[in-house]
Amino acid sequence: MVKRTSHKEAGCALARPLDAIGDGWSLLIVRDAFDGLRRFGEFQRSLGLARNILSARLRNLVDHGVLQAVAAADGGAHCEYVLTEKGRGLFPLMVALRQWGEDYFFEADRPRARLVERQTGEAVGRLEIRARDGRTLTADDTVTRLEG
Amino acid sequence: MVKRTSHKEAGCALARPLDAIGDGWSLLIVRDAFDGLRRFGEFQRSLGLARNILSARLRNLVDHGVLQAVAAADGGAHCEYVLTEKGRGLFPLMVALRQWGEDYFFEADRPRARLVERQTGEAVGRLEIRARDGRTLTADDTVTRLEG
Repeated sequence: MVKRTSHKEAGCALARPLDAIGDGWSLLIVRDAFDGLRRFGEFQRSLGLARNILSARLRNLVDHGVLQAVAAADGGAHCEYVLTEKGRGLFPLMVALRQWGEDYFFEADRPRARLVERQTGEAVGRLEIRARDGRTLTADDTVTRLEG
Repeated sequence: MVKRTSHKEAGCALARPLDAIGDGWSLLIVRDAFDGLRRFGEFQRSLGLARNILSARLRNLVDHGVLQAVAAADGGAHCEYVLTEKGRGLFPLMVALRQWGEDYFFEADRPRARLVERQTGEAVGRLEIRARDGRTLTADDTVTRLEG
């Protein structure tokens, strides 16, 4: 088995989040939370995940401040899971993952879930990397630098 | 141990890519490839990963068409790993992950690696989700719909 290594002390902003969301199930839980799912059973039905695995993933997301456990909206005894502000900050990552999936993992005309603008029903635009002044940048236009 | 479940048949564009990149090490390998690393030993030094684990992750990325194994640039016997066009399509996801990491996993003034524009040295702009006509959208402005 792979020894779990923490990226907590990494000097790279891309590495540190991986303790929180660096596995596929956690990303799918966050996706479902964006889609409005809140209850343990809802996530379980959506993901088909064993209770103990789902439970561990939810706890990890709560520990990292991505989800918050709140009292049930209907006053019931169970708790529900909602995205925190930090969790909602994952929206661009969700969109990036979805657009890459659409580009490379689907045949053009196959049915799929699409992210659309609520009011118009139109698909959201392509994510673009831009300079501060608005110019579009490719990966080749950028470089990683260690800064103080 | 968690049974490996494939997301290959999922109807969601966000789920399918997770077989290819749904673990933290794979994302860090892709990051390093964007930073210009090509050789097995370079990835190993960067990630501090056991040979067998790194080897399996590289093979999985090649199998999914994210990396391509090519003959060494110096004519040596070993092969090198470079991003395919599909792999380069992960650039927005890399930026999204990095920006989220900068927002929530670092104190403001601590040293870190930053993604900057090569020519100007300025940090790249914030990723924004936009409608087709350019308006900025939040998660609340969007909804996931199953379409044909």
